[in-house]
Amino acid sequence: MPEQAMSDEEAVLAANQEFYRAFSARDLAAMDALWAQETPVACIHPGWDALVGREAVMESWAAILGGPGAPQIRCERPRAFVLGPSAFVICREVLEQQGWLIATNVFAREEGGWRMVHHQAGPAAQRQPTPDTSERPPGPLH
Amino acid sequence: MPEQAMSDEEAVLAANQEFYRAFSARDLAAMDALWAQETPVACIHPGWDALVGREAVMESWAAILGGPGAPQIRCERPRAFVLGPSAFVICREVLEQQGWLIATNVFAREEGGWRMVHHQAGPAAQRQPTPDTSERPPGPLH
Repeated sequence: MPEQAMSDEEAVLAANQEFYRAFSARDLAAMDALWAQETPVACIHPGWDALVGREAVMESWAAILGGPGAPQIRCERPRAFVLGPSAFVICREVLEQQGWLIATNVFAREEGGWRMVHHQAGPAAQRQPTPDTSERPPGPLH
Repeated sequence: MPEQAMSDEEAVLAANQEFYRAFSARDLAAMDALWAQETPVACIHPGWDALVGREAVMESWAAILGGPGAPQIRCERPRAFVLGPSAFVICREVLEQQGWLIATNVFAREEGGWRMVHHQAGPAAQRQPTPDTSERPPGPLH
């Protein structure tokens, strides 16, 4: 489906999904392609301090995707909030056997389409889900 | 200084600072006033699942600011990224005696000025700083 036929919300959700596809596939070229080229970028990996600027951000992805422990990651419940030429998505990140994180992904519209300008992921709960059980994190459900 | 005389970056940083002022002062009326009125909002408190919609978000602030344990919070190293009619700020949140968090705050321009549309805070490091020592969180420094 060409991007012009999609709503902004659908296009942003597609860009968000591509981020998680590239992450899971450890596809550094695709990860590089989905981040913004002209717009300043930042990134906050879970437990890290903030990274600012494309060079630092892409170095971090090279380290994470190239490392031996790169987890399989799945995105759940993505919700898009479109703000004109930018947007953000909030979603849950499910890592195999490691519980889940919660993320905010910010996108800006560039010539090629929606591109990521910021990513913050952090723990959603103190507890890890135990195998074969379903645990909800503390705090209000939305 | 009237907002029109400020750059967008300065105005966004001022809005970000007002968020931390209202938070520290436990000023629920000010907190309500600084969140967007027309633009959809969301919020991810540390360790909570995502909250979506003004009602849920403001209920959470009433609970947090009204509770007995509301911490003093100070914002450090705020950096603003302006994206036209929206912007995001990343900053460190220093809580008295509890270490620090790292936050992403998203703003949209409404009629009254820059208003918050999203806030995510999460732990910056596994370790808490020990009293009278300075500890840096793990991960690359920017």
